[in-house]
Amino acid sequence: MKFLRYGAKGAEKPGVLDKDGQVRALPGADFAGDGVSLERLGELRGLNIEALPLVEAPGRIGACLAWVPNFHCIGLNYAKHAAETGSTPPKEPILFSKASSALSGPNDPVIIPRGSEKTDWEVELGVVIGRDALYVSENKALDYVAGYCTVNDVSERAFQMEKGGQWIKGKSAPSFGPVGPWLVSADEVRDPQALNLSLSVNGEVAQNSNTDDMIFGVAEIISYMSRFMELKAGDIIATGTPSGVGLGMVPPKFLKPGDVMELEVEGLGRQRQEVVAAK
Amino acid sequence: MKFLRYGAKGAEKPGVLDKDGQVRALPGADFAGDGVSLERLGELRGLNIEALPLVEAPGRIGACLAWVPNFHCIGLNYAKHAAETGSTPPKEPILFSKASSALSGPNDPVIIPRGSEKTDWEVELGVVIGRDALYVSENKALDYVAGYCTVNDVSERAFQMEKGGQWIKGKSAPSFGPVGPWLVSADEVRDPQALNLSLSVNGEVAQNSNTDDMIFGVAEIISYMSRFMELKAGDIIATGTPSGVGLGMVPPKFLKPGDVMELEVEGLGRQRQEVVAAK
Repeated sequence: MKFLRYGAKGAEKPGVLDKDGQVRALPGADFAGDGVSLERLGELRGLNIEALPLVEAPGRIGACLAWVPNFHCIGLNYAKHAAETGSTPPKEPILFSKASSALSGPNDPVIIPRGSEKTDWEVELGVVIGRDALYVSENKALDYVAGYCTVNDVSERAFQMEKGGQWIKGKSAPSFGPVGPWLVSADEVRDPQALNLSLSVNGEVAQNSNTDDMIFGVAEIISYMSRFMELKAGDIIATGTPSGVGLGMVPPKFLKPGDVMELEVEGLGRQRQEVVAAK
Repeated sequence: MKFLRYGAKGAEKPGVLDKDGQVRALPGADFAGDGVSLERLGELRGLNIEALPLVEAPGRIGACLAWVPNFHCIGLNYAKHAAETGSTPPKEPILFSKASSALSGPNDPVIIPRGSEKTDWEVELGVVIGRDALYVSENKALDYVAGYCTVNDVSERAFQMEKGGQWIKGKSAPSFGPVGPWLVSADEVRDPQALNLSLSVNGEVAQNSNTDDMIFGVAEIISYMSRFMELKAGDIIATGTPSGVGLGMVPPKFLKPGDVMELEVEGLGRQRQEVVAAK
């Protein structure tokens, strides 16, 4: 099933796509935390979708999660991307996080923060956790996934790498976490390691790869992370970006107001963001 | 006012200390997110505390926040601590985060994760944000603080520094974020840069310092962070630890099952944690 949230910012309602791609209103809790638990999504699977109220004019599509307990990210998880940033491929997954307030709608403007000169794009496969995961083996790890979504892990490279310390500084500005349009339930994604993903800027393809190029696959990431923390229902993990980011271009190319990003992960829906400057 | 949460894990209720140090039951929302907004705490200030129901046997004290949108931390923020870890004092605040699921009660056991040999302690001044903070000047920054609390930023040093990448791996295990016992409203803390803080292990003092030794003070931290992200009501910032951690001892000394940590930030209440091994 393809779950989504529609309506004005802060007033979104949960919905689901029917077989014709139309939005149907869903009863019950919004999508976040236990609202995306495997148990809850299983209940929704029992509904007769075509009998749910049709939403004639859904308007804006919001982030497919209302809020996130954690916005986790994996760094340098595609070998060619590691190379373009001047890094060696990691031996173990690199974890970092975004501030949860970076969460944003898939088509909402991306806001270049004050003082930024190096705002960059990163299309990624997003994984949404469906139940508590602590000390989970790799071969059971996908049983903990509620679903998948498209993510743009927007990044300010100077904030990320030239200010001392950890990457979170360059990953956390408001609008730096577009998520959606859909939360696609795990049963609809046959193999998370066989999805094309691509991103264009002003119509020119910048990133174009497949999740089969990941250094650490989704199951390995979940199992690995669960050694260091308890993942919770509603946590999102952005699993790393392939090559083709602005930082890796010669010369590097960064976003400016008026630019338009379009991105997609196969089967998970398309995002489109206009770039604007912070007030 | 000294706010707290009492009761069994997962079933805590909000309360407040009266002038005799007894717990009184508070009406309304639990303490988390907008439940600790400056607006809400202002409303609670209008209550006649002595008229609230007395809680005769409050039992266990939980974390003073039910959940956190973000568990932010500042690294190496005391010069002597930076030196003991072999680092040079940072030129700008170092930001990192804990998984929000690390949040724990002030007296709940600290669980050494599987595979850990280097679990360590860090007493810290915790700052709880009371309203959205983006692009906040340093001289206005303290107006965004809901209150303060004692934090133990429990850390696994091998996970933090020997696994590649970012510190979050060593900061996020379940129980690694004891917070409380009290959320002390900002009006009761005359100067957050003049608070003694100390931690002992098995009765021996390990850390003993004062927040006047911070490299970056609370106002500067909030202002700085607000350039990179929007802080939200209920976010907690652990502001760094003074010297005296186990990693800095010669030879290094780490926690083992049966150890007892006791820690306190002046005026913010005392924590006591027994150390146990993960199952």
